[in-house]
Amino acid sequence: MGDPAGVGPEIICRALAELPPVQRARIIVYGDIKFLRRANTLTKSGLSFSDSGSFSNGRGVSLVHIPVEQAELVRDGMMNAAAGTCSYAYIKCAVAAALAGKISIIVTAPINKEALHAAGHPFEGHTELLAHLTGAKSSFMLLASDKLSTIHVSTHVSLAGAVQRVTTERELAAIRIGNTHLKRLGIAQPRIAVAGLNPHSGENGLFGREEIDYIKPAIRAAQSEGINVQGPISGDTVFYRAMRGEFDLVVAQYHDQGHIPTKLIAFDTTINVSLGLPILRVSVDHGTAFDIAWKGVARHDNMLATIAYASRLCMS
Amino acid sequence: MGDPAGVGPEIICRALAELPPVQRARIIVYGDIKFLRRANTLTKSGLSFSDSGSFSNGRGVSLVHIPVEQAELVRDGMMNAAAGTCSYAYIKCAVAAALAGKISIIVTAPINKEALHAAGHPFEGHTELLAHLTGAKSSFMLLASDKLSTIHVSTHVSLAGAVQRVTTERELAAIRIGNTHLKRLGIAQPRIAVAGLNPHSGENGLFGREEIDYIKPAIRAAQSEGINVQGPISGDTVFYRAMRGEFDLVVAQYHDQGHIPTKLIAFDTTINVSLGLPILRVSVDHGTAFDIAWKGVARHDNMLATIAYASRLCMS
Repeated sequence: MGDPAGVGPEIICRALAELPPVQRARIIVYGDIKFLRRANTLTKSGLSFSDSGSFSNGRGVSLVHIPVEQAELVRDGMMNAAAGTCSYAYIKCAVAAALAGKISIIVTAPINKEALHAAGHPFEGHTELLAHLTGAKSSFMLLASDKLSTIHVSTHVSLAGAVQRVTTERELAAIRIGNTHLKRLGIAQPRIAVAGLNPHSGENGLFGREEIDYIKPAIRAAQSEGINVQGPISGDTVFYRAMRGEFDLVVAQYHDQGHIPTKLIAFDTTINVSLGLPILRVSVDHGTAFDIAWKGVARHDNMLATIAYASRLCMS
Repeated sequence: MGDPAGVGPEIICRALAELPPVQRARIIVYGDIKFLRRANTLTKSGLSFSDSGSFSNGRGVSLVHIPVEQAELVRDGMMNAAAGTCSYAYIKCAVAAALAGKISIIVTAPINKEALHAAGHPFEGHTELLAHLTGAKSSFMLLASDKLSTIHVSTHVSLAGAVQRVTTERELAAIRIGNTHLKRLGIAQPRIAVAGLNPHSGENGLFGREEIDYIKPAIRAAQSEGINVQGPISGDTVFYRAMRGEFDLVVAQYHDQGHIPTKLIAFDTTINVSLGLPILRVSVDHGTAFDIAWKGVARHDNMLATIAYASRLCMS
């Protein structure tokens, strides 16, 4: 359900209301019934929530109600520790269900990192939190859209820290994991390009050696495993080429390198996939939008796209 | 004329051939008459080059012929030191003319940095070379297109080096110089946004402090001077907002941050402007394209857009 002070409950209700009953029946919400019922009324979604935990049909929505004492301290559109405590509890419960095999994939609504930190959970983001809860050593964020897909060597670290994370090990892991993911989506031999870290991929070492020391060795290793990957290709051309259909996936070296082009050409339809975890998880790619939360105006297009992507992954 | 082994001579001929005579008469080419005549024949441009150095009309093109001994060692489509020596000589001569007030603005065709380095001129790029020749302390690259314009706090340095160049002084200089440039283009009160360096502008210091320590102080200082500037705004939203018309200019923190979005949405029409120098200079935003050079197939759209931008700056 995400942060209860944000737009999560509203976009969940709107999206669920639009799904055909048979698809809605395959979904369980992990959250708080009070917020969901209020959002249902606010958005006139006409749903009914049941906390039995079982699947239901028609306009009913299955729910695992997770009572959190501090929930009554949550304030609409406000960042606070209570909301952070709630969102952490919902995620933890959903992850446990996924690890136990009760659910096939987690779809997450937005959380607020500062609220999470205020609540004593110092994670850099959703993905890092999921890595912690599942005991995964590392994880990779993939942004997917119809026009462009990118997997990131690093995400929520400073740019100086991102430069440090460019290692042959992480490059190779990103290529392998991206390749496996695209195969799962039905692409037999994915075409992958790796972006350079430095301007013009460092121009043969003129400005920066990461391409020579870490990126090229990883690409060669992946190629020797039979992966169809090439690069490094200069950041200012590789996304253009991918958008025009030359590649199925670009390995971006840091957060903004992948996020800027993807969100520029697919702002509302980009979704966020966590890879490298023992569970599957996809997320909307927008924030809690506190400024418009609980006003009944938040758009749910992105949540619908995310649910559709999750369904596609589960079907495979 | 740029690197004689690259596409420069061809795109110059094609672009000049399309200009109305009155506009062509305002242009002088600084280069080598042999390469230009050959390109003229290859592209069937029907021009005649005169090395008198004076303005001419009709199909004639004024030329300052710069003889370079090594010119005969230049090979079509090949990177070598001779070509680097030539392109350096052409730029040096044009810069001297601009500093002397003989020409109002320099339009540059592409050079090859490795050729320049091989010729003993270790500059990181055209812009840095121009800064050296004009004695400028620093310079800033602006990418302009109809859809998006960005000025860069740094350009041809490694990403690690770019992080180091984020200082209050450079941020403020980029904002001021961008503002002055847009006013010269006729925008009375330019709307400027500054992109964050770190993901989500560092999220209040969670990952990276450059926004707090350097970028915000520069923005406040610029605002106090009456400049209409705001930020820092997260890289993954600021270019989208600018593209939709909210800002006239985005201050990008490093090469790829500005180049990726601009080239993604305006690949063929982006042009490159050097600011902060005592002379005006605009350039095509593509390379020497050795792979297609001297085959008569290079497109000149970008050169035409660059000449048009230069004309607009000269008229103001």
